[in-house]
Amino acid sequence: TQEDFDLATIYVSDAQYNRNIYFDTSPQAVRLYLLYNHWALKVLLYFFILVNLSLAIFEEPALVSLPTWATMLVELLCLLVFTIRLVHYAKVIPREKFWKDPKNICIIIVLLLTLIDMIIYGALKAANLYSVRWSRVLRPLLLINVTEGRQLRRAFRSIRNALPEVSSVFVLFIFSVLMFSLMALKLLSKRGLKTIEGASYFTNYLEIVFDLYVLVTTANSPDVMMPAYNANSIFALFFILYILVNTYIFMSVFLAVVFNNYKKHLKEEIRQLVRAKRHKMARAFGVLQEQREEGGPPVVSHENWNKLVQQARPDISSAHRELLWRVCDDGNQGFIGKVAFVQLADLLNIEVITLKSRPHPLQSLIPSLYESKPSRLVCRVVQHRGFVITFDLIILVNAVFIGLDEENPLISNSEWVFLALYVLEILLKLYAFEPRAFFSKHSFWNWFDTIVVVAALIATIVNSALKSSGGYTSRQVLDIVFILRVLRLIRVVDGIKRFRAIINTLIRIGPAILTFGQLILVVYYVFAMVGMELFKNKVKFYEDATNPEKAYCGNPLLKGSTFAQLSYCKNNFNNVVSSFILLLELTVVNQWHVLGTGFATVTHKSALIFFVLFHVMVVIIIINIFVAFVLEAFFVEY
Amino acid sequence: TQEDFDLATIYVSDAQYNRNIYFDTSPQAVRLYLLYNHWALKVLLYFFILVNLSLAIFEEPALVSLPTWATMLVELLCLLVFTIRLVHYAKVIPREKFWKDPKNICIIIVLLLTLIDMIIYGALKAANLYSVRWSRVLRPLLLINVTEGRQLRRAFRSIRNALPEVSSVFVLFIFSVLMFSLMALKLLSKRGLKTIEGASYFTNYLEIVFDLYVLVTTANSPDVMMPAYNANSIFALFFILYILVNTYIFMSVFLAVVFNNYKKHLKEEIRQLVRAKRHKMARAFGVLQEQREEGGPPVVSHENWNKLVQQARPDISSAHRELLWRVCDDGNQGFIGKVAFVQLADLLNIEVITLKSRPHPLQSLIPSLYESKPSRLVCRVVQHRGFVITFDLIILVNAVFIGLDEENPLISNSEWVFLALYVLEILLKLYAFEPRAFFSKHSFWNWFDTIVVVAALIATIVNSALKSSGGYTSRQVLDIVFILRVLRLIRVVDGIKRFRAIINTLIRIGPAILTFGQLILVVYYVFAMVGMELFKNKVKFYEDATNPEKAYCGNPLLKGSTFAQLSYCKNNFNNVVSSFILLLELTVVNQWHVLGTGFATVTHKSALIFFVLFHVMVVIIIINIFVAFVLEAFFVEY
Ligand code: NA
Repeated sequence: TQEDFDLATIYVSDAQYNRNIYFDTSPQAVRLYLLYNHWALKVLLYFFILVNLSLAIFEEPALVSLPTWATMLVELLCLLVFTIRLVHYAKVIPREKFWKDPKNICIIIVLLLTLIDMIIYGALKAANLYSVRWSRVLRPLLLINVTEGRQLRRAFRSIRNALPEVSSVFVLFIFSVLMFSLMALKLLSKRGLKTIEGASYFTNYLEIVFDLYVLVTTANSPDVMMPAYNANSIFALFFILYILVNTYIFMSVFLAVVFNNYKKHLKEEIRQLVRAKRHKMARAFGVLQEQREEGGPPVVSHENWNKLVQQARPDISSAHRELLWRVCDDGNQGFIGKVAFVQLADLLNIEVITLKSRPHPLQSLIPSLYESKPSRLVCRVVQHRGFVITFDLIILVNAVFIGLDEENPLISNSEWVFLALYVLEILLKLYAFEPRAFFSKHSFWNWFDTIVVVAALIATIVNSALKSSGGYTSRQVLDIVFILRVLRLIRVVDGIKRFRAIINTLIRIGPAILTFGQLILVVYYVFAMVGMELFKNKVKFYEDATNPEKAYCGNPLLKGSTFAQLSYCKNNFNNVVSSFILLLELTVVNQWHVLGTGFATVTHKSALIFFVLFHVMVVIIIINIFVAFVLEAFFVEY
Repeated sequence: TQEDFDLATIYVSDAQYNRNIYFDTSPQAVRLYLLYNHWALKVLLYFFILVNLSLAIFEEPALVSLPTWATMLVELLCLLVFTIRLVHYAKVIPREKFWKDPKNICIIIVLLLTLIDMIIYGALKAANLYSVRWSRVLRPLLLINVTEGRQLRRAFRSIRNALPEVSSVFVLFIFSVLMFSLMALKLLSKRGLKTIEGASYFTNYLEIVFDLYVLVTTANSPDVMMPAYNANSIFALFFILYILVNTYIFMSVFLAVVFNNYKKHLKEEIRQLVRAKRHKMARAFGVLQEQREEGGPPVVSHENWNKLVQQARPDISSAHRELLWRVCDDGNQGFIGKVAFVQLADLLNIEVITLKSRPHPLQSLIPSLYESKPSRLVCRVVQHRGFVITFDLIILVNAVFIGLDEENPLISNSEWVFLALYVLEILLKLYAFEPRAFFSKHSFWNWFDTIVVVAALIATIVNSALKSSGGYTSRQVLDIVFILRVLRLIRVVDGIKRFRAIINTLIRIGPAILTFGQLILVVYYVFAMVGMELFKNKVKFYEDATNPEKAYCGNPLLKGSTFAQLSYCKNNFNNVVSSFILLLELTVVNQWHVLGTGFATVTHKSALIFFVLFHVMVVIIIINIFVAFVLEAFFVEY
């Protein structure tokens, strides 16, 4: 029946896209399940997750202030959407499966807690009492726990699995830091040394521990050692040993442990994926199977198979389908068994690139002209290596021109020449090569080139129009023109073969960096919410250079501090955007102790815990996973 | 004959220790070869290499000034020793082999160039003309090219093999830096922004390239972005993208490429080692082989084998030898063929730990007392888990006491109690366990404990004696006491099982870190020599705090520079020790741009090339090899 085919199609596409949802097989549930997987609903869901997360821009401390009722109304709408999506999901899968899945429980708890928090917050606000929107830290949990967040959950699982071993090493590492600190206390505290600020040097144990922890990140090297080194060169030995053990050896061990666990975990996950995929395909087979011979094994006929593939992948051509069938039915029997059927999911994922050279459309349109001698010469010139080299040289000359001052009219006019040359290049290529092949899915550089050149052409024209219309240049348009001009230069590396392998590997990492970006987003969001509650408006940035408060970020406690001296005032937690940028700076590590002590100065020493915690979670664990990930990508490649 | 046995013995020990010298097999050459491999001559050679390298301490710019004739005399002596060693080597191996080996050619060239340099230097010095001892940079080449420097040569080969691929990535990386710099120039140069020092911001292309190169190392983050970020938050995006691409992705790719090449190369090297070892053993077999049966395969008899093993490893017991024979001659035929013979080199390297429990010496000395009930109770207590836990607790209490102020008499006296407890612990353990087993080769922690406790006991007694004799405390002795006290605390980690695996891996890396230390020494030495020629006495450190020149390191050019403000005056190239410490600081990377620009300020902008070159060679290549090395050690372990 048609229902059977629908069901089998769903199993096949679930297997193809590695979906793992145990949906009900009643016709109604199947229809709901198809709807649930519709791309528009998924886009809508992610849109509302994004809206929900973006509310932080408008809530206090806000980048753009909105009244509380407005943000709360939007949040309620988001909660409603999430609830509908969850109810939809509950209708699709069996009831007991629904309640056993921690993902669903987690979403329900988040939704309830958010609602409770909103009510409390609203009530307290109405009574003009101080209140905290604590449920905001829960928002990223939705990103993790929606059914589509598979990759992200995998990343978090991989972190969780690495934790026991990482924490063993971490305890040992902290022990080492504590021992070295104790030694530093005994060796240096009684010598009456002073830091360059004139404070006493290495006299308090906890301060030594913090200073030496910062030294592990290298952020206060060599400053932390200078007073001791100035007193006696021999003390340099202590710090060298410390850096060798704690920075070089322990940090490498962290990378090794994270990498090892990541690989081990990845292998296990892939094994499970393959198993789940086979299971789905076996179910699809079970739906379509028939008995050819009495007592023989069940099989699927060519006819049914054809219909299934047509439904599962309506986009593939019948020739391609015929090819797939011949791969499956290699005995040419007219039916296939379970083993041959199960491999279909993988076969469908293989991109078959049709290599047959299609004739150029101009050849069929104006054959006499296109095949004339001059036309052929043009084609041969374009396909020649010299053509590529010529344009690489033009790009290099262009680079020099860009570097020169664009206020010189000769140089600013030369831009039109270069643009014309680039447009000419693309047109010539489109003349010589088949346009559909030129703009095929895998021709990254052709797409890149064309988009950049066309965009640059448009932006340059807009810019000139603005300029000639009123002698006025829009800074934004000009910036875009500049960026596009420089982007165009990148193309030169594609010409060199030995760079192409490296760049292709980097491009292939792309999708995984997206998952990684979500991971970072989740962690940053939580830290940003907490950070904003703890540190909002403690440090202020003044645009106005004449404001005397600018020198100490509007907080007298910061007078004379390194934080203020380096004019770090804009590195604050006063809105979600600057919080994110601050957290990025902490991820890069350098000067994190200055930022941390700055915020400790305006609040309390214990605020340093926030910054150390961030360092441990983001730099020691998450960045190492990222590095492990790039390493693995390159190991697989070579 | 005896000569045959000597020759076979040499082949076996060459195979065992992976020596690869194709020596002459004439009896005289063999005797010379045995002498050449004598440990005393090797120690002597390394001693003179060390002396030769250490001359830098006494040569201008000197830490301890010696007259030129004195250092030159010592250097001549060193050259003489190296020449003798080389002549000895030439006598050992066939003449044509000697002249084909680049190692020997390299040593000869180094010796000749050094001699020429010394003559020129001496002549110019006598004529009171300016001259440079340029041959000093060649000194570390001797460390690499002596026959014993196999491991070090392997490390350098591994770097050389990684170079083509690393340089591909490096060119791409530099291209990326240049493109980003060009974009920064176009976007930021015309905005009239100022750095916190009031200088113009991002207006000069070369300066932007340097600033962004420094940003790759994160050393000027977030300072380099603050002026742009203060002007407009959107510019943070540019820097974030830059750091993502160049710091996170490219630096990880460098690690990946270095690691990949290291592994590939290591595998090839090990394959070659195994091949060479087999070849040596086959030659030993060739010397000792005899024909048992007419036309049968050649064999080695049990008798000859025994004699060979006795000569090759006189230290192993006859029981152990008998065991080895049984492993080889598993058919119990009384002779072995080539295949069984070849594996001997590996068998000899296996440590056989005799597990039989020897009785305690006290048991045979005073059996009645040692086996009495109270004595047995003592043994049982010592072997109990509670005993270990008790002493771990004592250590923790001790740690707290160390942290407290030792000027309190209660606390300084408690030290005696702790020392007594530790001595008691060791004595009890020696009473309960067999002493030779307790101090066996593999009992790292027992050795560690005993040495630290005994040393602490001696140092504390010396300290007290000094104190009571004249109320005078020697700072040095007290420092040693403090260090030993803290070292004792380390023992606590050995008690916890899950740390032991990590620590054992770390201990096993030890020998390889030694090779790595030599590698670093070679590179540092070359950079130190060049650095001292370029920058000596440009920056001065004044012990005297009242000296007004201290504020700008004795060089008016540094007035107001960050270098002087952070009082980095002692980070200079005025002698070899401070040069090495400075290079270490550059290796740690943080603030390297401050150090670099400091030296560029007192000389010329192009001095930055020295610092960038150092960063590329040491941080991008050598440190990555170190990390690859630690990673590999941990991957093998788990
Ligand atoms: Na740093």
